[in-house]
Amino acid sequence: MSLIVQKFGGTSVGTTERIKNVARRVAHYRRQGHQVVVVVSAMSGETNRLLALAKDLSANPDPRELDVIAATGEQVTIGLLSIALIEMGVPARSYTGGQVRVLTDSAHTKARILDIDQAAMRADLDAGSVVVVAGFQGVDQDGNITTLGRGGSDTSAVALAAALDADECQIYTDVDGVYTTDPRIVPEARRLDRITFEEMLELASQGSKVLQIRSVEFAGKYKVKLRVLSSFEEPESTSAGTLITYEEDDSMEQAIISGIAFNRDEARILVMGVDDRPGIAYAILGPIAEANIDVDMIVQNIGASGHTDFSFTVHRNEYRKALDVLARERGRGFQCREIVGDDRIAKVSVVGIGMRSHVGLAAQMFKALAGEGINIQMISTSEIKIAVVIDEKYLELAVRVLHQAFDLEKSPA
Amino acid sequence: MSLIVQKFGGTSVGTTERIKNVARRVAHYRRQGHQVVVVVSAMSGETNRLLALAKDLSANPDPRELDVIAATGEQVTIGLLSIALIEMGVPARSYTGGQVRVLTDSAHTKARILDIDQAAMRADLDAGSVVVVAGFQGVDQDGNITTLGRGGSDTSAVALAAALDADECQIYTDVDGVYTTDPRIVPEARRLDRITFEEMLELASQGSKVLQIRSVEFAGKYKVKLRVLSSFEEPESTSAGTLITYEEDDSMEQAIISGIAFNRDEARILVMGVDDRPGIAYAILGPIAEANIDVDMIVQNIGASGHTDFSFTVHRNEYRKALDVLARERGRGFQCREIVGDDRIAKVSVVGIGMRSHVGLAAQMFKALAGEGINIQMISTSEIKIAVVIDEKYLELAVRVLHQAFDLEKSPA
Repeated sequence: MSLIVQKFGGTSVGTTERIKNVARRVAHYRRQGHQVVVVVSAMSGETNRLLALAKDLSANPDPRELDVIAATGEQVTIGLLSIALIEMGVPARSYTGGQVRVLTDSAHTKARILDIDQAAMRADLDAGSVVVVAGFQGVDQDGNITTLGRGGSDTSAVALAAALDADECQIYTDVDGVYTTDPRIVPEARRLDRITFEEMLELASQGSKVLQIRSVEFAGKYKVKLRVLSSFEEPESTSAGTLITYEEDDSMEQAIISGIAFNRDEARILVMGVDDRPGIAYAILGPIAEANIDVDMIVQNIGASGHTDFSFTVHRNEYRKALDVLARERGRGFQCREIVGDDRIAKVSVVGIGMRSHVGLAAQMFKALAGEGINIQMISTSEIKIAVVIDEKYLELAVRVLHQAFDLEKSPA
Repeated sequence: MSLIVQKFGGTSVGTTERIKNVARRVAHYRRQGHQVVVVVSAMSGETNRLLALAKDLSANPDPRELDVIAATGEQVTIGLLSIALIEMGVPARSYTGGQVRVLTDSAHTKARILDIDQAAMRADLDAGSVVVVAGFQGVDQDGNITTLGRGGSDTSAVALAAALDADECQIYTDVDGVYTTDPRIVPEARRLDRITFEEMLELASQGSKVLQIRSVEFAGKYKVKLRVLSSFEEPESTSAGTLITYEEDDSMEQAIISGIAFNRDEARILVMGVDDRPGIAYAILGPIAEANIDVDMIVQNIGASGHTDFSFTVHRNEYRKALDVLARERGRGFQCREIVGDDRIAKVSVVGIGMRSHVGLAAQMFKALAGEGINIQMISTSEIKIAVVIDEKYLELAVRVLHQAFDLEKSPA
């Protein structure tokens, strides 16, 4: 007998029919003898409906009251799922964040979990009940209702799994696991049986939007075994999804490259002919940060004759704003020859824990791209990732050719 | 400066536009220097929507979980109203039943209030905030969410007023007070400035559906001044609605009769020729009670020659069921000559605290009805009420003629 935390998102509980399916799946695990804690989101569309009501009353609604309103979405789902379970003969009890109690700080609408009291849940589990917990919410020290911010239900599930020392935390989504890349672009894309947290973080932040990044970080920190599964398969399905582990154990797939991530959310800005002197990066990026613009990749080459080129990427929505900031700062914080940009770019990343111990992967990547005549505009690397910026029109081609170059369609030996 | 509890029902907060209106009204009182506690219901339609979701999942949903779901309706409203108030520059803080805390017993879906903690509310009021409380809900000793049953928001308001020793509890509805009778039947019907709790109870239970009976009983028990007002008039309106008092003070209107109540929800059943012996009433009504059928009026005349006729009224929806029960029991628990019934009846009641000290009112009532040729089928009296059952087709005529006979269109001297 093991203790499993299962999390179902808004789409999985979007109708009473789907809630019945979730109940069947939970009942299936319970009847196998497992103890089950279920974490649910609001029914899809509900949170937006509630926020729209608040926006009707104020352009800038009081955050404490916004949390009071938003928290009701999950509260409805826990009651409905418990009713569905009890109707199937499975004892169940619902808990709001406050009832658990999930203690958070007081940062309304984006609170952080400080502590989880597991006593009441444990008593119910030991008595044979399924425990159904509202995701996304908690209470602060003074009993005020808080929410963790959008998508926070994944974090709730991982935090509960950590508090209960659960054997596994299963995140049910509309995909059946993490793939080597997007199957819509590469039909041969393969579901990964396992992936490390580090790889998952790189894949998630690079655009494989399966899990909230924060929940993956949280799982890594507390060494919670996280599994991504599909909520649309039959409960009896033997597909085990993708297990996200915090260690490279011996049974680990010996893949060098786990997957290809990509996105076209970014734009590139190049500041040409700046002084090659200490502090120049801060002179350029300081004002950008002050304008609350997030920067992703940053590249600066070694300069010649005292000048260098400095380039970085920002979200496409903030491209114009970033250019305006630089135009304003030019001649004040820094001098340069020219500022140019491009918002028709894509970023493609090769991700793999095996990179740590393998050389020559970057060369292999660049060769594959060159073979198709794809020019690389920027390069950025981390321990387990090589990312390149290319012309957006080559995105699909690049993903396909890289997937093939690294034999990702084949299971590792 | 006084402390006022104001309660707004589902229709008054049915849209964000109406919530703004409620906020304007509350702000108006607050700016006059009063401390204000507002109790709100769920937005109209919301409770039904939530219960329908639960019914989708189970014909007989778990009551604990039903309360978890239903309580969200009011929780949304307190957040929205607080946001609307804050937007108008009026400091406000919302409280769920559990946050107040409104302690109830554990009878889910029909809990009773045991205690209210006023410390937190008092601190907010003293700090100048409006306190916005979710009606209809509480928590039990173990922190489970409970609801008081439908319409329980009136009771919440009265209980809060009692706990806070409020100067007045104002119940806003879609009418501007309690009338001598339904103005749709008698255009001359007059709004009563004051009415006693006893009269209100008789008027309410007889079909003047302005307030929940339970909240009126509660107000009487805890001597809370209750005022019924319209939520659709301008906040600055000087109409004071109807004050419901627990004492006949000196300034009390000296009316003998306060109003005419009526309903056509009932059906009459006559059991003819039963033995005139002890226990016969129980033999007939025992099985009716066992079948969960509520009985209203009961009349038994003194019998002649060892036999008597026994008649009673039930809700029209239970008329057929009651006849079936009697047909089954006839010849077992009791003997009789014949069982007949009529579901085309109406009940008309004359209500007035002055009846206690005035004689001849019944005769005056019967004379007025006889003058129009209206036959009286059953009569039942209490200290402050005379009720008669008549043919339903005479209902409007009876109400009009009684309203006139007792000069109810005129203000008492």
